[in-house]
Amino acid sequence: MKKKGFSFSDHLEITGIDGLPEIKEGDDLTSLFFDALEEKKMTLEDHDAIVFTSKIISKSEGRVVNLSVVKVSEAAERIAKETEKDPKIVQLILNEAKEIVRMMKNHIIVETEHGFVCANAGVDESNVEEGKAVLLPKDPQRSAERLKKEIEKQSGKEISVLISDSFGRAFRDGVTGTCIGVSGIPALLDRRGEEDRFGKIARITKEAVADEICAAANLVMGEFKEGMPIVLVRGLKLERSESNIKEILFKKEDDLFR
Amino acid sequence: MKKKGFSFSDHLEITGIDGLPEIKEGDDLTSLFFDALEEKKMTLEDHDAIVFTSKIISKSEGRVVNLSVVKVSEAAERIAKETEKDPKIVQLILNEAKEIVRMMKNHIIVETEHGFVCANAGVDESNVEEGKAVLLPKDPQRSAERLKKEIEKQSGKEISVLISDSFGRAFRDGVTGTCIGVSGIPALLDRRGEEDRFGKIARITKEAVADEICAAANLVMGEFKEGMPIVLVRGLKLERSESNIKEILFKKEDDLFR
Repeated sequence: MKKKGFSFSDHLEITGIDGLPEIKEGDDLTSLFFDALEEKKMTLEDHDAIVFTSKIISKSEGRVVNLSVVKVSEAAERIAKETEKDPKIVQLILNEAKEIVRMMKNHIIVETEHGFVCANAGVDESNVEEGKAVLLPKDPQRSAERLKKEIEKQSGKEISVLISDSFGRAFRDGVTGTCIGVSGIPALLDRRGEEDRFGKIARITKEAVADEICAAANLVMGEFKEGMPIVLVRGLKLERSESNIKEILFKKEDDLFR
Repeated sequence: MKKKGFSFSDHLEITGIDGLPEIKEGDDLTSLFFDALEEKKMTLEDHDAIVFTSKIISKSEGRVVNLSVVKVSEAAERIAKETEKDPKIVQLILNEAKEIVRMMKNHIIVETEHGFVCANAGVDESNVEEGKAVLLPKDPQRSAERLKKEIEKQSGKEISVLISDSFGRAFRDGVTGTCIGVSGIPALLDRRGEEDRFGKIARITKEAVADEICAAANLVMGEFKEGMPIVLVRGLKLERSESNIKEILFKKEDDLFR
């Protein structure tokens, strides 16, 4: 069988890493992660995937906005009226957006400057002090690369880092953990050319493993009070790869739903 | 903290159950599952979630079509030309579809009779003998309910059953494991009303846990030769629920992308 950067795991362990303090701008997440890991008496192994919730990345990188200083444009006022949303939040969404994809009451779906299609450009008022909102990390792909490098240096192990946010989907209700930055493993596993159990060659299957890993992590991450901001996924057998989350994002012209 | 059918797990184990024979129409999947479990020297525990790939459900329920007997309609001929697909496969897609959602070269996205929006109505020629195609189960929700009942009866444990298929998405390339039938746990976790870590009340978050569990399972399931047709997810702490996969499916009029 032709393998393309992949062999099957038959067992995964997914462990929430808690015990981190409330994250502030400038905090060293790598060092806080190792402290929390030590607290759990765990050490890293080769192939471990470490999933960070985007929120602590954003907080450590200072991507928290005090709503009282937001100046609302006319466009934001108008859209706020149409969608019945807070004008200051709408302003932040517009600041983060490359393009509005869909808009209706309570909903503004945009493509962010990074290329993610999501609600509210990821601007979120949960798990932050009243009167503040958290933006997505400025460059979550670079944040993932930096964290991977730092964690590998300190541990001496070959690991991967993924950054996860909760995004809604078309066709189906509810959010799922979704990858916004990945370093060390492929974002997308290209399985074209593999044989099936009858020896036929697969023609079209690409598997979005980075999103599946973030979805799995979200089952222990949680979004509220007891949430786990970091999750360790152990047992993956993905080949190491210099990937980029952009591989997973459809260009607008290739997207059947834009 | 107000809890709604949920407490957080901090550790999940995901185990592939292999060693099943090639599945034929009429096979008793419950009994084959217990044989495979015994072979791995495992027993079930309360709260275990058992994820079945839709393909073995389909095969056991006789949802395999011999392409040589498919009669191609004029509509299928026309669409086959437009999309450059096999006319017989197109005919099967039309048979399974309630409505065509998008169509272009190599792509036919439909809403199936069940209400799933997916490519090719789930009609799939992989992992079946040459000249045959596998359809989605006729009523995967009912299949999940039946399997859950049988497995609970035989094990004496309170478990859940999910049926998973690999679906593509809007906006992002690649397929992910996606739930098409669930029994025993909620499809969608309604977290509105929960407090965040600053005591603010969540207003909109519903988490599609059934899809996240199927995505997690897909990381060990694989789709090709060494694939694991059944995956055990241990450690979930979801409240028991008489749910239905329909809860997760947007009605067309509520879907921003149709």
